[in-house]
Amino acid sequence: MTDSMTANKERPEPLTINGLRDAYRSGEVSVEKFLRTKLEQVRTDESNAWISVISDQQLDTYLVDLKTQDIDQLPLYGVPFAIKDNIDLAGLDTTAGCDAYRYQPADSAYVVKQLIKAGAVPLGKTNLDQFATGLVGTRSPWGAVKNSFDEAYISGGSSSGSAVAVATDQVYFALGTDTAGSGRVPAAFNNLFGLKPSKGLLSCTGVVPACRTLDCVTFFAKTAEDLKTLYQVGASYDETDCFARHAIQPALDGNIHFSGLRVGVPTEDQLEFFGNDEYRKLYAQSVARLESLGAEVVPFELEPFIKAANLLYQGPWVAERYAAIESFFDSNHEQCLDVIQTIIGGAKDLSAADAFKAMYQLQEFKVQCDQLMDNVDVVLTPTAGTIYTIEEVNADPILLNTNLGHYTNFMNLLDYSAIAMPAGFTEAGLPFGVTLFAGAFQDEALMTLASEWQQAMNLPLGATKIEPENADSVDLLVCGAHMKDLALNHQLIDLGANFKKRTTTSEHYALYCLAGGPPLRPGLVRSQNEGQKIEVEIWRIPKKQLGALLVQIPHPLGLGSVELDSGEWVKGFICESIGIEGATDITGTGGWRNFLVQS
Amino acid sequence: MTDSMTANKERPEPLTINGLRDAYRSGEVSVEKFLRTKLEQVRTDESNAWISVISDQQLDTYLVDLKTQDIDQLPLYGVPFAIKDNIDLAGLDTTAGCDAYRYQPADSAYVVKQLIKAGAVPLGKTNLDQFATGLVGTRSPWGAVKNSFDEAYISGGSSSGSAVAVATDQVYFALGTDTAGSGRVPAAFNNLFGLKPSKGLLSCTGVVPACRTLDCVTFFAKTAEDLKTLYQVGASYDETDCFARHAIQPALDGNIHFSGLRVGVPTEDQLEFFGNDEYRKLYAQSVARLESLGAEVVPFELEPFIKAANLLYQGPWVAERYAAIESFFDSNHEQCLDVIQTIIGGAKDLSAADAFKAMYQLQEFKVQCDQLMDNVDVVLTPTAGTIYTIEEVNADPILLNTNLGHYTNFMNLLDYSAIAMPAGFTEAGLPFGVTLFAGAFQDEALMTLASEWQQAMNLPLGATKIEPENADSVDLLVCGAHMKDLALNHQLIDLGANFKKRTTTSEHYALYCLAGGPPLRPGLVRSQNEGQKIEVEIWRIPKKQLGALLVQIPHPLGLGSVELDSGEWVKGFICESIGIEGATDITGTGGWRNFLVQS
Repeated sequence: MTDSMTANKERPEPLTINGLRDAYRSGEVSVEKFLRTKLEQVRTDESNAWISVISDQQLDTYLVDLKTQDIDQLPLYGVPFAIKDNIDLAGLDTTAGCDAYRYQPADSAYVVKQLIKAGAVPLGKTNLDQFATGLVGTRSPWGAVKNSFDEAYISGGSSSGSAVAVATDQVYFALGTDTAGSGRVPAAFNNLFGLKPSKGLLSCTGVVPACRTLDCVTFFAKTAEDLKTLYQVGASYDETDCFARHAIQPALDGNIHFSGLRVGVPTEDQLEFFGNDEYRKLYAQSVARLESLGAEVVPFELEPFIKAANLLYQGPWVAERYAAIESFFDSNHEQCLDVIQTIIGGAKDLSAADAFKAMYQLQEFKVQCDQLMDNVDVVLTPTAGTIYTIEEVNADPILLNTNLGHYTNFMNLLDYSAIAMPAGFTEAGLPFGVTLFAGAFQDEALMTLASEWQQAMNLPLGATKIEPENADSVDLLVCGAHMKDLALNHQLIDLGANFKKRTTTSEHYALYCLAGGPPLRPGLVRSQNEGQKIEVEIWRIPKKQLGALLVQIPHPLGLGSVELDSGEWVKGFICESIGIEGATDITGTGGWRNFLVQS
Repeated sequence: MTDSMTANKERPEPLTINGLRDAYRSGEVSVEKFLRTKLEQVRTDESNAWISVISDQQLDTYLVDLKTQDIDQLPLYGVPFAIKDNIDLAGLDTTAGCDAYRYQPADSAYVVKQLIKAGAVPLGKTNLDQFATGLVGTRSPWGAVKNSFDEAYISGGSSSGSAVAVATDQVYFALGTDTAGSGRVPAAFNNLFGLKPSKGLLSCTGVVPACRTLDCVTFFAKTAEDLKTLYQVGASYDETDCFARHAIQPALDGNIHFSGLRVGVPTEDQLEFFGNDEYRKLYAQSVARLESLGAEVVPFELEPFIKAANLLYQGPWVAERYAAIESFFDSNHEQCLDVIQTIIGGAKDLSAADAFKAMYQLQEFKVQCDQLMDNVDVVLTPTAGTIYTIEEVNADPILLNTNLGHYTNFMNLLDYSAIAMPAGFTEAGLPFGVTLFAGAFQDEALMTLASEWQQAMNLPLGATKIEPENADSVDLLVCGAHMKDLALNHQLIDLGANFKKRTTTSEHYALYCLAGGPPLRPGLVRSQNEGQKIEVEIWRIPKKQLGALLVQIPHPLGLGSVELDSGEWVKGFICESIGIEGATDITGTGGWRNFLVQS
């Protein structure tokens, strides 16, 4: 049992917002000490994630403020976070990734103020693709932001630094922005959850615009539950933001489940992985996971969405990027990166008539897309079809960037809500992500589904290699009639459990068929000397259902801890020694299924 | 009693849609004969209202179709109508007011098809300001459309011919379009109701665009009830129009009344009449009328609306007009009127960045305006602040046109619904109109209020000089305790009656104070030889309440017909001759009020 306990000891602090608050509350962690440690960690970051960091004096001010506050009143009490450097934080310059553009904001952005008011502590401003124009994370004078899993790879952008700062556990969450995918692609490439909320729900006051009619502020977090907490704090109607909207009654219930949900999945011919077969396989596995969660997979036509997406950079919206910084750009364009000069400079030739004609085209696509959306509850796509090395992107900066936006560019144009979710790893250990999207104002339902997804996947959090500590489900080892398709499996299904994997115990187990039945029952008994590996299954079961399972388990069976072949210990079925009396030793079969076949 | 009966005889047909259907049903009017007469009337029109008219053969086809149909199934059975010539009708060319632009439409516009399917018969295509660019009705190679009240005056535009054709009773209703006021200004100048529905409710398929993001198809009619009928037929969701919208739950009930309604009325300093003091007075009278209908008049700030309006022609939306006819205009601009060349040609210099920046400005105004709208249920403004002669407009075509859009230009930009309503006449007999507007999708409530307004105003219909024949209210003469502020006046108020005017009978009446009481009761008795003029009041009372009033009227009083000093006969209180026994002759007092003061 030492492995998992050791893991706990190696982890000096919790990884989620609620976990951190609990640790503060219990006194296990000191706010001041912790935040100073975090600030130090930020200062020694080597991934190019940061453009500027708060001073010790500034931290002192936040700490003084916190000391006058009641943690129970502040959902983000003492939670360190990062701010993309196109969002204002009073006390640090805003650069938008361009030193010549630098200015001192008079005030913090509206969303930043909401977060600070709720107790969160900003540690600094993060690196980005210049003027939020890019999905790569390489377009910055502060250097390409290194992927948190492999520094040869891009981090994704434009909210590159924000994503890496969260994934590497320098902060608990971060603010990004998203016009074409900037809040989702970096989430995918750093194994994070990224909420791209419906337009107008998170205020854009105090944000350097990219395309004002499309821009969204986004959150990066390690868990979907953290996103919910952030959304509740941040989604406050800002009367001073003329693009702010009140959420209208969503079509989907906030207490939604995948079970029975109609999930659109692009047909094979509509998918594009740019040659990345590993991502193709991981996407297929994600779809299979959806089905195992009870979703109804509905073939989905993605073509009109992709056509709409093409309007973003080929159409007039790039003129919004120019309009946002027009006077600066006109006099200082040579101080922008070459690629940015090319993209934004191109907008000058577009006429107002071009703009309106593209809007008509978009509206045509919007009608087609909405009609397709009417046939499903949500849609699942890859977040990005592939990932590139920094070197590859530097060699072909515009085309590869375009490829990365294949599944993301259409979202804001079409006014949908979306959430990026981790969905596994390539053999080389690079993260793959999927995106769930739905119509506008379905944000809460998406976060609920993302939470269910996270429990089912139980992937490590960000780049920490640590699984969700506060997960509401646990792994449960079953070794007999509870296994898939066998007599008592329905007990697990009825309690909301999901199959995770087939594996074996360590070699220290014996297996018995107990006297009595039907049903026949197995007794798994740890036996230091005479055992062998026994085939077992791991299921994910909601913690709160363990009691209900336990009352269904008769003597001499029980629930305890079992060692796997990997050395990991999991909860699972055990048998009291007294149960062995009159039982048949079936260890030699290697597992219950073999025993059933042979008997 | 001859006057009103004579008027009826001079009127060979009813003036409203339902009236016409009733006349068809009863056989009083023959569909075929009637439509042929109407077509002849259209062909001899001298107001420049028409660009093209259907042939006899085309009418025959419509008649053949109608003969196979059941009038009870067709709400517009045999109702002749006009179509603005930027809306397609199969069988006639569409010109949009520019001969070189002329094309043969393959099909009728979606809305036209709905109307024809419901039994309506299009008699032709009407004149308009070229490419629907203007509010004057003078910008046409087919000549300035003459105002239906005074041919020296403009008809208003751009839907000039449609309005005049309805006002002069050539057709029962007409289709217009409205981007900046084209469906409202001509309604005002021709004493009509004009519905500018919420964007996207009437299909724009088959309509030559002006500004596609703003264009609305509109209806002109002589009564608000007719508009309701038309709206029910025409507001059918068109899947092929990408700007079509489903109406969302409106904030206002469709069964609304002015009583208790919060009506925004611009404060004096926010009103602009361009020196037209008569219009200023008529507007003040309209506001007083609102109050007499029980509305709560709320001072309203119009400035941000006017600022938004200024964006329309000073901003980039004119580029939509260019985009709509780009290839034609590029090669044929010299075939457009000079003023159109100036306006549309100016759009070529506008950049996409200009377009987006103006959209941001508009969005800022939209937020301000919506906040002001939240404080009221509807707003009442003049429809136009003044009216001009054709000569005046020809001398200064752009500035005077701009003046006419003062209260209308903002409506579509801000996404509101609006209805133009007749509101009285100048001393020279020119019509004045007001507009009620509200948020999007409040169309039905606006039509209900317009109907109440029409009953209260009881103005002649269009330019016919004939009052609503199917009005749900009637004039009722009262001569005693039912008069304003007297003992039994509450009976009228309780029944929904509204004060109309104080006047006198003809000189053939005697007035008695009957025996008995309190309350004292008057006996008005027609007396050919010995009478005199008696002061009386006219109230408007819903027809359906007359019975409820009658049961409250004791012997010897009753309801009958009374001759006014004007020679007009109205319904009113009468007295049986038997009631005079024991009564006091108070004829010499000149009326009940004087009697009360003197007694």
